[in-house]
Amino acid sequence: MGMSACLRFTRRVWHSFVENKGHDVQCFPNLEILSAKPGVVEASLKIEPYNLNRVGTVHGGLIMSLTDTLGSLAIASKGHFMTGVSTDVGTSFIKPAGRVGDTLYGKAVVTAMGKSLAYTRVDFTNDNGSLVAYGHHTKYIGKSLSHKDNVEFTEDGENLVEKKSA
Amino acid sequence: MGMSACLRFTRRVWHSFVENKGHDVQCFPNLEILSAKPGVVEASLKIEPYNLNRVGTVHGGLIMSLTDTLGSLAIASKGHFMTGVSTDVGTSFIKPAGRVGDTLYGKAVVTAMGKSLAYTRVDFTNDNGSLVAYGHHTKYIGKSLSHKDNVEFTEDGENLVEKKSA
Amino acid sequence: MGMSACLRFTRRVWHSFVENKGHDVQCFPNLEILSAKPGVVEASLKIEPYNLNRVGTVHGGLIMSLTDTLGSLAIASKGHFMTGVSTDVGTSFIKPAGRVGDTLYGKAVVTAMGKSLAYTRVDFTNDNGSLVAYGHHTKYIGKSLSHKDNVEFTEDGENLVEKKSA
Amino acid sequence: MGMSACLRFTRRVWHSFVENKGHDVQCFPNLEILSAKPGVVEASLKIEPYNLNRVGTVHGGLIMSLTDTLGSLAIASKGHFMTGVSTDVGTSFIKPAGRVGDTLYGKAVVTAMGKSLAYTRVDFTNDNGSLVAYGHHTKYIGKSLSHKDNVEFTEDGENLVEKKSA
Repeated sequence: MGMSACLRFTRRVWHSFVENKGHDVQCFPNLEILSAKPGVVEASLKIEPYNLNRVGTVHGGLIMSLTDTLGSLAIASKGHFMTGVSTDVGTSFIKPAGRVGDTLYGKAVVTAMGKSLAYTRVDFTNDNGSLVAYGHHTKYIGKSLSHKDNVEFTEDGENLVEKKSA
Repeated sequence: MGMSACLRFTRRVWHSFVENKGHDVQCFPNLEILSAKPGVVEASLKIEPYNLNRVGTVHGGLIMSLTDTLGSLAIASKGHFMTGVSTDVGTSFIKPAGRVGDTLYGKAVVTAMGKSLAYTRVDFTNDNGSLVAYGHHTKYIGKSLSHKDNVEFTEDGENLVEKKSA
Repeated sequence: MGMSACLRFTRRVWHSFVENKGHDVQCFPNLEILSAKPGVVEASLKIEPYNLNRVGTVHGGLIMSLTDTLGSLAIASKGHFMTGVSTDVGTSFIKPAGRVGDTLYGKAVVTAMGKSLAYTRVDFTNDNGSLVAYGHHTKYIGKSLSHKDNVEFTEDGENLVEKKSA
Repeated sequence: MGMSACLRFTRRVWHSFVENKGHDVQCFPNLEILSAKPGVVEASLKIEPYNLNRVGTVHGGLIMSLTDTLGSLAIASKGHFMTGVSTDVGTSFIKPAGRVGDTLYGKAVVTAMGKSLAYTRVDFTNDNGSLVAYGHHTKYIGKSLSHKDNVEFTEDGENLVEKKSA
């Protein structure tokens, strides 16, 4: 059985982030999109030296950047090629998030999505499955709702309902 | 007249971030600390392609990383070599923050600092002086209050009160 | 010289909150709108026993309720009778905000306002003028932009540009 | 079988909020603590006219006040009679949270708790079980860790491990 349409699409959106050669690829070029269902994306990041702060643990800025990017990818997993603009993002840091060689896991969930706004939450866990940080990310999507590359998935994300793009 | 003791110290702390070769230098190696008085730090960043999102403007993750780092440097400007661990960071994005070649300015202010907690706020402005984003950053500093490299400044930050470190 | 059109209008909006007999008047019936210019509202609250927490200082929930309400009134001060719906509100608490008999001051500022979103910040100070807390409040205003009771002020808020309502 | 020790204690803490006649009882005198296990508290609120905003739905300030109070009660459910002071609280509002006669449900979870800081998250759902809002609440608990009325529960909260208070 092949990869679900939703995972394929979400990875394609992530790939468009990578190709852009901007902040995402600068921070976490090796981000892996592990799974994607409409509205829920799971990813992992093997921690590298350039992800750290001065005390040798994952930098808060990295986790916030992931809060931003994974929240956007959760919106993408609903079939949106463009994911709008952020209005508010916040992250709470409850324990050190790992050192070089550890893996950081992020799970982003769309909590609501209308014609103007999309809300996401992102939970970060470590190799032991312990919660280390979590964030919320609100976006204005009013201008990206009808992008030509948007698609629609079946409820389980396995298939495309209507292929709008090549 | 030479550089103030506070600016010299704050730049030294920033330099220790750079030497660490972690997330800070990965994201904004060319950050410039323009000024520092105890509790207030101003910095600028010439925007480079690796600071962008897919639509060609400054990535929200970059601004959040700066909210984190500039808030920490504002704590450093009070004479703290180590600046504690973040508890909560949040940023509001009110307009696009610039494109390649533009300069992004950040001003971080310590709003409160006790024996356990330090609070900072960071305002981001563009070349026109317009506010583009702002954030808040709360840190637990209980374990870094008595670091051997901490110093104390005169109220205006011009001089050291007591030189604790070389 | 009489009261400015902006202050008169903002107080009228506050009065509509009071008449509603909801959460606002339950929490702070004696809120005073001290001044209003388009986008900037100042208010004061004499602290009463029903504003407190268990340790006898102002309850965080009261300050957050004021972050919500004063942010909305700052939007009102731009001539908007209805002020949209909140998307994200957050408050940082940096010191105890007062006891019975003290006065709490709040200053709300609109930092950005477009056709869909309005952003505000609220600073809280005590009788000594010390900052005690501050918050941010983002609202979706897409559906309240063209309310029949909206008005337009001259830049200084002294006069109405065009009287749309009685 | 009787009520668990944890639920009994958490209700006792809530009762001390009520007796205080402050902001809590002003806003939601009829809050019901439905269940409590160490670190997890569920509550419900029948919505009354004094909980509303101008458009007839639950006021954001009410939900934020509950974010504050339920987060504190989740800390209480770990056996803490006093629950520290808030540093940061934030709430995201994803849909209208109900009208008079509806019931609003809140579930607060302690995500981390050390010697200095406690972190909580609160989810709000409506009568249909739909998520309507959620918040995060961080508290400094360094000074309330050793209160004479603190107790310790068995892991499941059914019994007291050591009865420190009458």
